[in-house]
Amino acid sequence: MDDFSAAPTTRSQCAALDAADPLAGFRERFVLPKGVIYLDGNSLGALPSNAAARMQEVVEREWGQGLIRSWNEAGWYDLPRGLGDRIAPLIGAQPGETVVCDSTSVNLFKVLTAAVRLRPGRTVVVSELGSFPTDLYVTEGVSGLPGGGERRLIGRDGADLESLLDDQVAVVLLSHVDYRTGRLHDMAAVTEQVHRHGALMIWDLCHSVGALPVHLGECDADFAVGCTYKYLNGGPGSPAFLYAAARHHESASHPLTGWFGHAAPFAFEPDYAPAAGAGRFLVGTPPLLSLAALQASLDVWDEVDLEALRAKSLALTGLFIRLAQNLGLDVVTPLDPAVRGSQVSLRHPDGYAVVQALIERGVIGDFRAPDIMRFGFTPLYLSYCDVWDAAEIIGDVLATESWREERFSVRGAVT
Amino acid sequence: MDDFSAAPTTRSQCAALDAADPLAGFRERFVLPKGVIYLDGNSLGALPSNAAARMQEVVEREWGQGLIRSWNEAGWYDLPRGLGDRIAPLIGAQPGETVVCDSTSVNLFKVLTAAVRLRPGRTVVVSELGSFPTDLYVTEGVSGLPGGGERRLIGRDGADLESLLDDQVAVVLLSHVDYRTGRLHDMAAVTEQVHRHGALMIWDLCHSVGALPVHLGECDADFAVGCTYKYLNGGPGSPAFLYAAARHHESASHPLTGWFGHAAPFAFEPDYAPAAGAGRFLVGTPPLLSLAALQASLDVWDEVDLEALRAKSLALTGLFIRLAQNLGLDVVTPLDPAVRGSQVSLRHPDGYAVVQALIERGVIGDFRAPDIMRFGFTPLYLSYCDVWDAAEIIGDVLATESWREERFSVRGAVT
Repeated sequence: MDDFSAAPTTRSQCAALDAADPLAGFRERFVLPKGVIYLDGNSLGALPSNAAARMQEVVEREWGQGLIRSWNEAGWYDLPRGLGDRIAPLIGAQPGETVVCDSTSVNLFKVLTAAVRLRPGRTVVVSELGSFPTDLYVTEGVSGLPGGGERRLIGRDGADLESLLDDQVAVVLLSHVDYRTGRLHDMAAVTEQVHRHGALMIWDLCHSVGALPVHLGECDADFAVGCTYKYLNGGPGSPAFLYAAARHHESASHPLTGWFGHAAPFAFEPDYAPAAGAGRFLVGTPPLLSLAALQASLDVWDEVDLEALRAKSLALTGLFIRLAQNLGLDVVTPLDPAVRGSQVSLRHPDGYAVVQALIERGVIGDFRAPDIMRFGFTPLYLSYCDVWDAAEIIGDVLATESWREERFSVRGAVT
Repeated sequence: MDDFSAAPTTRSQCAALDAADPLAGFRERFVLPKGVIYLDGNSLGALPSNAAARMQEVVEREWGQGLIRSWNEAGWYDLPRGLGDRIAPLIGAQPGETVVCDSTSVNLFKVLTAAVRLRPGRTVVVSELGSFPTDLYVTEGVSGLPGGGERRLIGRDGADLESLLDDQVAVVLLSHVDYRTGRLHDMAAVTEQVHRHGALMIWDLCHSVGALPVHLGECDADFAVGCTYKYLNGGPGSPAFLYAAARHHESASHPLTGWFGHAAPFAFEPDYAPAAGAGRFLVGTPPLLSLAALQASLDVWDEVDLEALRAKSLALTGLFIRLAQNLGLDVVTPLDPAVRGSQVSLRHPDGYAVVQALIERGVIGDFRAPDIMRFGFTPLYLSYCDVWDAAEIIGDVLATESWREERFSVRGAVT
């Protein structure tokens, strides 16, 4: 349990920590609007400074001048696998186990159906009631397929994981970091628990990749999916990634059999034959312009020390938690750093209105129903002083109560 | 049958046609490399002149400065439906029937599973052996689902459509224009034939949208999918579109149930409830940067007269066919304009090497196995003189036989 004794207690202590911060140099690798403290990088990451030039290159030179030739000459064809291999070190994967393609939702469908097929005779999918909804919806879609089975949810009727595991369970899908509370699962222990019952384990890494080191391989995870537009800063809606452990490559199959997942896509054969490696999870032609922005953002990630990232993340969230507690706010996120992601969530009955008032004051966080104010801390472009200043503004806004007027006007607008 | 009597017989006649061409002004709306005659717009459309500025705006202003606020303030959230409604006039759809999302392959999966569910008791999917492979692979994936049925293919063992239709057939999936030969199906007649047998009809419009007027509504089609990166010029791998006839909106369902297809995605409810309209076919967060380029390209399409487009397309392909015949080449594409798309395919035993030699000379077409040289004619940025000049260069290349050397070096490289 964090006692927060290391957290600074004055702004000048924050400034001193910033001066000594080994990650401080990354701030200039991002473009951020003036007058904004951006605490929503867990929803949409900031613009890397090199992205605009990369976009101009892919649009004007590769598309405009190279045209169809760029599929080979500019390496477009290799991007889904190549970008996957660049994400691999961030998630503890080996080369060939990760591809970038489609959305997280579509990738979830692929790995869920693959996992169920790898456990014949078992049809139950277990997930968690508090998961990000798309995870729940996709488990529902997979369970609703002909021959599909039951969907069991941790947290529904008080069920815990152990009570839901039996020899009918094919696969368990959990979020490594909870999108609402910021709680971090123990990946190694949970994966081992699930395997003990003969089921496969899928991790949703949307809120952990780029927020902390992830060790899929060491933890023996079977599959994983994740966003690239949050902590990875790949741009709005940038394609997701999919991880499949090498041991499943030969036997894994899924019904989204498109030409990009074929062993020889340009042979134009009438029958499907899956590609080797995680490439069999590719489906259609990928959105190249969006991939190009991700390519630029991974140039930054290639240089990041993940242990230093995690240390700064915990220091920033620890500082914010202490300042929020000083303001008398209800902290939902675990105080124990061992089970905390890189966000801090505060419960407030008028959270929506307060968040709107904060945005007006330049502190951008977000709101998650029913009453969670959510603040993400991205160590690459946030400083200790940013956290201090954000907490001051939160204190001001709550004290002046201008958010109460905001509440009524906003509620009227969104109902 | 086209007698080609209207086709010009000299380059100066071509120049006269260009001078009188009502679509000639569109040429300056595109960026094309110098020294290139681009006959591959049916594979990757050219860069619209306004796209670079739009990309700069979405990257630097909307992402960089607007950050998460741009989902509302820049209208990102509305793009999948909004762009669908802008494609609607090009395919004969009503507002609300078309969405832009995912790849053609993923959209095919959604409409195929939806169609099979709408025909309970029927499990057979009919497609065509000569289809673009991803269509075949996805029908294979859908047929392979638990409870899935047989896949029957027109052209396998000489089968025609009528011989494959019986009361087990749930759905027929056909390409409106064949990607290899350029043959155009009679959409109204085929749809009526399929409906007569109680099955649903899905059209793959990849090679017809933006090449000729399409009338899905008039023809009573049930579903359709299509690319936006070919004739629509949306950029490499730009997201595909999906059409669902309004009469199916209430009852259609598919297993790719993601949060963007939910009736209230930001309510974060644990159970899935499909959105109204074609919106229920949305799945995950869309790749915004790729959608932004498509947005720019549709600014051009908003101004195009599709009847004038079709007239020029047939004139260009007719001219090219006559010139190819003069060169003694084997024309695979139908001579009859009523059943011809906007491409001309030539069969040549060394087609691959000839296409490579042509690319060296600045005439960019492509090759489709085993022996098809394929040339696409995009009326918005090609002139009659371009067609004339391309045919001259083809004649030169075949006469000098420099492609024979190319053949051996290239074959060595790609084997």
